[in-house]
Formats: sequence, structure tokens, C-alpha cells
Amino acid sequence: MSSPVALPGPTAAILIIGEEILSGKVEEENARFLVQELRGLGVQVRRIEVLPDIESEIASSVRTLSVRFDHIFTSGGVGPTHDDVTLPAVAGAFDMRLERRPELEALIQKALGAEMHERDLRMAEIPEGARLLYGDPPDPTRWPVVAVHNVFVLPGVPQIFRRKFDGLRSLLQAGPIFTRALYSREGEGPIAAVLDAVVAEFPGVTVGSYPRLDAPDHKVKITIDGRDLALVEQALARLCERLGPAVVRTG
Amino acid sequence: MSSPVALPGPTAAILIIGEEILSGKVEEENARFLVQELRGLGVQVRRIEVLPDIESEIASSVRTLSVRFDHIFTSGGVGPTHDDVTLPAVAGAFDMRLERRPELEALIQKALGAEMHERDLRMAEIPEGARLLYGDPPDPTRWPVVAVHNVFVLPGVPQIFRRKFDGLRSLLQAGPIFTRALYSREGEGPIAAVLDAVVAEFPGVTVGSYPRLDAPDHKVKITIDGRDLALVEQALARLCERLGPAVVRTG
Repeated sequence: MSSPVALPGPTAAILIIGEEILSGKVEEENARFLVQELRGLGVQVRRIEVLPDIESEIASSVRTLSVRFDHIFTSGGVGPTHDDVTLPAVAGAFDMRLERRPELEALIQKALGAEMHERDLRMAEIPEGARLLYGDPPDPTRWPVVAVHNVFVLPGVPQIFRRKFDGLRSLLQAGPIFTRALYSREGEGPIAAVLDAVVAEFPGVTVGSYPRLDAPDHKVKITIDGRDLALVEQALARLCERLGPAVVRTG
Repeated sequence: MSSPVALPGPTAAILIIGEEILSGKVEEENARFLVQELRGLGVQVRRIEVLPDIESEIASSVRTLSVRFDHIFTSGGVGPTHDDVTLPAVAGAFDMRLERRPELEALIQKALGAEMHERDLRMAEIPEGARLLYGDPPDPTRWPVVAVHNVFVLPGVPQIFRRKFDGLRSLLQAGPIFTRALYSREGEGPIAAVLDAVVAEFPGVTVGSYPRLDAPDHKVKITIDGRDLALVEQALARLCERLGPAVVRTG
């Protein structure tokens, strides 16, 4: 049994930190956004984890994922309250200490002025030696993204998450991933052997098979992904040739 | 720094198996559904993972999660094609072999009749000794949920996923989880010390703090969850008393 594997090129994992997602109080938006955006940049997301606000669990995931994937994105847990433990967790993952960074302290003081509380300064305490990414073009008057090794620490509030991610795009841009689809009027059972053969013949593409219950004209959608468009087209042509009358259309 | 921990009572983890989610081709629906439903049944979801269709990765997650949580739910990867590897992965997680179950073979034959392909029978190959759960009340003419130890193996197609989950509700029902909320006109910095104190005073509840950028009348929503309603109300009252004029309203 052959399994699809990752395409060549950069990979990513997403860590969503939030009791509010696990308890169903808030709908998850950031992983959903990131999956689409990273795909558009040519980066393959290979794992998503949603974790509670527990420092040791987050640290353990960061440590494990950071050696397996090229980029790790965390969402949430970066404010000043008791349930904000992401930055200490990332420090712990890499056996680093937290240090208060004067440039972040200054940004907090400027933003909050007389309303600043000592507690707000906790947000300026980040893993020692962390990189501060001020966007593209850099704007040192805005709050930066904290990056430690290959981990980008992003805030959980979706509006800010998206804005911060925008500043990372030029760092992440990779070659495109091409996708083609084929719609089959036969179910998965009758076409499975053909899929196996094409998967074996074209190791440079990944093939997905998705049964559909509610589509008017097909029972299965088959997708072919790859970084080499010619190869994707070749695999699609081979599938069409082998599946013959089962093919409703391609897309 | 105190972190919220799980409440007493049953816990769960959700494993979403699907390249189509990771590549952004399909929006994730099953974890979203399950989080709400399990919460309603009094079961706390403590972790969600979205994984690719790679047998060893799924097996590794199942093995790890099944000892940490009371219930594990998998979604997807149970059809007859090359990318359907969940049942072998669950077998591998527990060092079990797959065996073809005659009662499942009969259901497949009945459903597909002359259109059945040998390959469809792969769906009848499940970990040896797995339990077959036929719903409540049991209906042996419908496809059952395969359960191995504390792992429930569910299909990825959302309509079927939901129908199969319905048959598990009576097995999962636990005591209710109560939630109350408080809305603060102050930001997180000024109220963080009060939250710390209430978190320390009421270890039987969990307290969440969620900044809001777009709410007209408050800057932070605070939630208190617990299995003891009186304790949840006491913690809410203490927060109100300590936060005083910062409280916009409770809910």
C-alpha cells in the first residue's frame, strides 16, 4: 500500500494554542487562513495541532515539530494574562531563558501611555536572542513578529494574526504547487487499482481520492498535486486514459 | 504563573486525517462539529491534530494520545483507496493485526451488490478483536463504528461522520460543564493580577481571558468553566467584586 508523501520543497506545521477552540467557544480561523495562504506561497502544511494553554505541552510540541518541518507557526497565548504561556513555552522548547527586550518595552509604553500596567510588560519578555521581524518593508514603529529558530510566534486575535502574517510573506515564498482534478462517476472500489498504479508510476506527484455523497454527476473527486506542472498533467492524462468512461470531467 | 488545567471528568482528543484539509482543498468540519457535541455531552476536548495520510504518523499519534485521554476520535482514511490508511494505523498503534470481519463483508456485499469490487472489501479489514458499535438502539443492518480500546474510528465524509457519532452519544454522556462569562471594559494588563488571584483561589474552575478588538463595549471577555455550578458562580462573583467598575456585564 503506497501512501502519498510530501512534495519536495518547504513544509510547515501550525500550532493553535487555545482553550477557547478546544471548548468550542470560538471558531478556529487562523489555521484555516494559514493553510490557504501557505499553499498559495508554495509551502506545504504537514500538521496542525490545537493545544490547551499548558506550557509544558506547547514546549513539547514546538520542540518536536521544529526539527521535523521547515517552518512552525504558533497562534495565541502571547498576551499578559495567566493563560498566556506561549513565549515561555517556546523558550523552554529550546532551553532558552526569557529576556525583556527594551525595543518591545518602548513599543508597549508608546502604545499604552499612562494606561500601561507593569503586567503589560510581560509581552516584552521573549526568548533570549529571538529575532524581531518588523514586516516588509520593515516598520519599527509596529509590533514585530517574534521568531526563534524556525518558529514564528503569532497572536491569536484573527485580525492581528493576518496582519502579522502579511509581513512574513516575502520570507516564505517558495515555488508554486500545481493542482489538477478529475471527477469519476465510479465509486472508489472500482477505481482503486488504477489509482494505485498511477501513484506508483508518478512518485513526483501526490494523489488524493475524495468520495462525494451529494455531487450530482460524480462519486469521487481525485486530485493530483505537484511542483512540476508537466508531470501533474502527465499523471492526469494517464488517469484519464486508464479510467476511460468513468471520467466525467477534469478541472 | 498558574496555567488552567483540565476539569475533572472525561477528556478526548480528535485526530483529523486528511491531506485535503492540510492542503486547504476542503474546509475542516468534523473537529468543529465534535468539539461542540462533546462539550454538550460534558467531555472536554484537550487536543486536536490534523495529520496527513501517512500510516506511521497516524499510528504514532493514536498510540500517544490513547494513553493520555479517555476517548480518541479519528476522522477519515477508512475507504478502499491508496490514501486510506487509518485502520492499519490504528492496528499498528496497538500491535494488532488486521482481520477481515465476515459481518462487515456481508454489509458491503449487500450495499454494493453486483457493483462490488474486491477492493471494496478492504473496508472490512479491521484490527483484530475490534468492537463493532451498531448505534443506539443497535441496528445491525447499518455500517457500525469500529472501536479499538478507547479509539473510535469515524469516516471523513461529514454527513456520515455526524450520523455515526449520533450512535455513540449514549456511551459518552458525562456530567455537564457550566460556563459563565464576564465582559471587562479594561484591557488585559490592568486586570491580569486579579485574574491570577481568582485562578489561584478557585482551582476547581478554569478561567480564560480573550481580548476583543471589535466589541463596542468591552476589551476582554473572561470565561469561567466548571463542573460545579455553585463554584463557577462563586468565582464569577469574586471576579465581579475584585474588578468592580471594569465589569460591563456578565453572561
